[in-house]
Amino acid sequence: MDGAQGLSVPGDRPDAVTETPDLAELQHRLAAFAAVRGWGPYHTPKNLVTALGVEAAELAEIFQWLTPEQSARVMDDGTTAHRVRDEVADVLAYLLQFCEVLGVDPLTALSEKIDRNEKRFPVT
Amino acid sequence: MDGAQGLSVPGDRPDAVTETPDLAELQHRLAAFAAVRGWGPYHTPKNLVTALGVEAAELAEIFQWLTPEQSARVMDDGTTAHRVRDEVADVLAYLLQFCEVLGVDPLTALSEKIDRNEKRFPVT
Amino acid sequence: MDGAQGLSVPGDRPDAVTETPDLAELQHRLAAFAAVRGWGPYHTPKNLVTALGVEAAELAEIFQWLTPEQSARVMDDGTTAHRVRDEVADVLAYLLQFCEVLGVDPLTALSEKIDRNEKRFPVT
Amino acid sequence: MDGAQGLSVPGDRPDAVTETPDLAELQHRLAAFAAVRGWGPYHTPKNLVTALGVEAAELAEIFQWLTPEQSARVMDDGTTAHRVRDEVADVLAYLLQFCEVLGVDPLTALSEKIDRNEKRFPVT
Repeated sequence: MDGAQGLSVPGDRPDAVTETPDLAELQHRLAAFAAVRGWGPYHTPKNLVTALGVEAAELAEIFQWLTPEQSARVMDDGTTAHRVRDEVADVLAYLLQFCEVLGVDPLTALSEKIDRNEKRFPVT
Repeated sequence: MDGAQGLSVPGDRPDAVTETPDLAELQHRLAAFAAVRGWGPYHTPKNLVTALGVEAAELAEIFQWLTPEQSARVMDDGTTAHRVRDEVADVLAYLLQFCEVLGVDPLTALSEKIDRNEKRFPVT
Repeated sequence: MDGAQGLSVPGDRPDAVTETPDLAELQHRLAAFAAVRGWGPYHTPKNLVTALGVEAAELAEIFQWLTPEQSARVMDDGTTAHRVRDEVADVLAYLLQFCEVLGVDPLTALSEKIDRNEKRFPVT
Repeated sequence: MDGAQGLSVPGDRPDAVTETPDLAELQHRLAAFAAVRGWGPYHTPKNLVTALGVEAAELAEIFQWLTPEQSARVMDDGTTAHRVRDEVADVLAYLLQFCEVLGVDPLTALSEKIDRNEKRFPVT
C-alpha cells in the first residue's frame, strides 16, 4: 500500500525514520487507501468537499460551548487533545483527496494566496 | 521544522527556487503574516475553527448546484479553477493557523490517522 | 406569545389536539427547556450559530456519499428517515434559539427575503 | 405566485394584514418561487442540504472574529442586523425547501425532538 513511503526515505537521509511525514507522501497513501478499497466512484469533488465540511464541523463541535479562554486549553486534556488531532487529520485527509481528484497543488495554492494577501493587507 | 527550506539548503538542491513550498514554511509565513498585523488576539482556536468552517463552505458553494459529472470538470473553466484554488488555500491556511496555536502537527496527526484507518478498514 | 396554543383556544378549533405545533410555541418550549437547565450562559449568539452549523453538517453527512438519485429516496428507509427528521429538528432548534437571543423574527425575515428575491430574480 | 397567502388570510381575521406570516405559507411561496423559475431539477435533497450548510456558514461568518460579548450586540448596528436577518432567512428558506422535497414536517420533527430531549436531559 505505501510503497511511496519507502521510496521517499532513501538511505542518504539518516533521520528518515523519525522525521515528519511529507504532505505529498500522505496524499499518495490516501489515494492508495481509497483505490484498494474501491472507493474511487464515491470520491467525486462534490462528495469530497461535503465530507470536508462535515469534518470541519466535527472539529468545531469540540469548541461550540467553550469560552475563548477554554478553547485555548483544549490540549491540556488528553482525551480532547486526541479528538482534536483526529479531526484535524480528517479535515486534512479530505482536503488532500479533493485536491488529488482535481489536480490542485494545495501548497502552491496557499503560497500564491499568501503572496496576494501580502499585497491586499499591507503592513501600515 | 526547517522553516525556510529553500533558504537553508540552497547549494545542494538546484531546484530550490521553483520547488513546491514546504508546509512548515507556509505555516511560518502565515504566523508571521498574522503577527505583524496584530491579529493574534483574534486567532483563538475557537475563532480559527469557525473561519475554517466558513472557508470550507465557500469551497462547497462552488459545487452546490452541480451534478457529480459537472463537479469533476470545474477546473476546465479558468475562473472557476482560480476560485477553487483560492478556497483550497483559505481552508489550508486556517487549518495550519489552528494547528499552530494549539501545537498540533497536522502531518503527524494524519499519518497516525491513516495507520488507524488501515486497521479499522482492512482490505478484504 | 401564546405558548400552548392548542390549550388556549380549544373550543373553536376542533382539530387543536392533533394539529401541527406552532413555531412560536416551539420557540417558547426551547427557551424554557434551556432556562430550566441553566444553559443560558452557553447560549451566546456565537455559540448557537456554531451549533447550527454543526447540526447542518450532521444533516449533510447523511447525504455525503449518495448520488442525487439516492438522495431523493432517503425517506424510504425508516432508520435514515428518522435520522433526517432528527437532524432537521436540531437545525431548526438552534436557528430558533439563535433568533430568540437576538430578537430576530425568522418568519418575517424570510417573508421579506422572498419579497426581495422576487424583485432580484424576475420571472422572464 | 402567492395564491396560498390569499387563502390563508380570510376575512374573519382582521389582523391579517400585519400578522406574522405562517411557516406553511412561506414554504408554499418558496416552492412556487422555485417552480416558476424552473429550479426544480437543482433542488435535490443533497443540493439543498449543501446550500443550507453554505448559508449557515455565511451566518457564522458574521460572528467569527467577535468575542462572546460582541456577538450579543450584533443587532445594535443596523447594517449588521440586516445581514443577520438576511442570513437567517436564507438558512430557513433552504431548510424549508429541503423539508418540502422530502416530505418532512419540520415543526412536528422539532416537537417530537423536544419531547425526546425532555426525557434525555431530565431536570435534576
